[in-house]
Amino acid sequence: MKSYRKELWFEIPRRRGLVNITPEVSAALKESGVREGLCLVNAMHITASVFINDDEPGLHADFERWLEKLAPEKPYSHYAHNGAEDNADAHLKRTIMGREVVVAVTGGKLDFGPWEQIFYYELDGLRRKRALVKIIGE
Amino acid sequence: MKSYRKELWFEIPRRRGLVNITPEVSAALKESGVREGLCLVNAMHITASVFINDDEPGLHADFERWLEKLAPEKPYSHYAHNGAEDNADAHLKRTIMGREVVVAVTGGKLDFGPWEQIFYYELDGLRRKRALVKIIGE
Amino acid sequence: MKSYRKELWFEIPRRRGLVNITPEVSAALKESGVREGLCLVNAMHITASVFINDDEPGLHADFERWLEKLAPEKPYSHYAHNGAEDNADAHLKRTIMGREVVVAVTGGKLDFGPWEQIFYYELDGLRRKRALVKIIGE
Repeated sequence: MKSYRKELWFEIPRRRGLVNITPEVSAALKESGVREGLCLVNAMHITASVFINDDEPGLHADFERWLEKLAPEKPYSHYAHNGAEDNADAHLKRTIMGREVVVAVTGGKLDFGPWEQIFYYELDGLRRKRALVKIIGE
Repeated sequence: MKSYRKELWFEIPRRRGLVNITPEVSAALKESGVREGLCLVNAMHITASVFINDDEPGLHADFERWLEKLAPEKPYSHYAHNGAEDNADAHLKRTIMGREVVVAVTGGKLDFGPWEQIFYYELDGLRRKRALVKIIGE
Repeated sequence: MKSYRKELWFEIPRRRGLVNITPEVSAALKESGVREGLCLVNAMHITASVFINDDEPGLHADFERWLEKLAPEKPYSHYAHNGAEDNADAHLKRTIMGREVVVAVTGGKLDFGPWEQIFYYELDGLRRKRALVKIIGE
């Protein structure tokens, strides 16, 4: 069994932002030499998400508005977690979007349907943060 | 290490619908010959979900009503993603339900608690769509 | 390839409650002898969740209040699933929080960012219930 590990680093210059990381994950898969297996990609921070959906700007704007409705950023005082921090909403938004994805590896490629793309969703940015790629297989 | 891949196809004759795919996933596991490992099942489309819960029609009706409250289908104009498409709500509903499940394989079987069942949840149907089963182990 | 399986048991003396199970999962990983691989942790019940987030009591109180807003426990008659049961809200709350996590194993340790901790979230307690740890790798 082979295994491969790689960190992807981000510094989003706003509180929130989306990055399509499919090319970086595909590159990591190539580096791994794994042909058949599983590829885990997860946010290493608890105020960020890794998820799979469409690379369409209208949809990304819908995600923003929808998450803000389900878990509003303000008033900060609404959340027991806030005080020293102001990012309780980011913990909740990431819970909706998910921490991780597991992708099948087949024939040395990410085994995706026609529109699947992997995103890193920063929900509390303005600092350096990481996602982890871990691939196992043969 | 063994690996096995199988696609499950669906054509739901309505916009939304639930299918219990536990028998198909169990059959794929038998075909794989894997005794110990992990089984990934994911929607290959970004407007569908694979999730685990109870096979109880009342609960499924509750999911329908609840998802429609959290991410209403209409008005279509509410979503930036809509225009050429009308399925923005399906992208959001699938985000709540999740893209994938990972199930332990033990002794050649899906290692499930008493009520766990795997479902394909079509959220934008009326066309042929797929889920992927990928099994790795020994 | 090595594989290892362990059940973690809980009996939460209230309807809902959170348990940090990171030490138990780390112990299972040590027992497994796996150095590189993947570790799946999932609730074996469909009214409980396993998720990763911060071990901060204010945040946990926020989760409680937020889940109760998104999927209220009462009135019980609001849900088609209820009748013989009263736990429809627990099925929905667990859908938000997620069934499972998959964690990378690197150098014999859970490959975590600075604040990641694994929790079992009981959403319909007052009885004995289980989570499953399944580790594969080498």
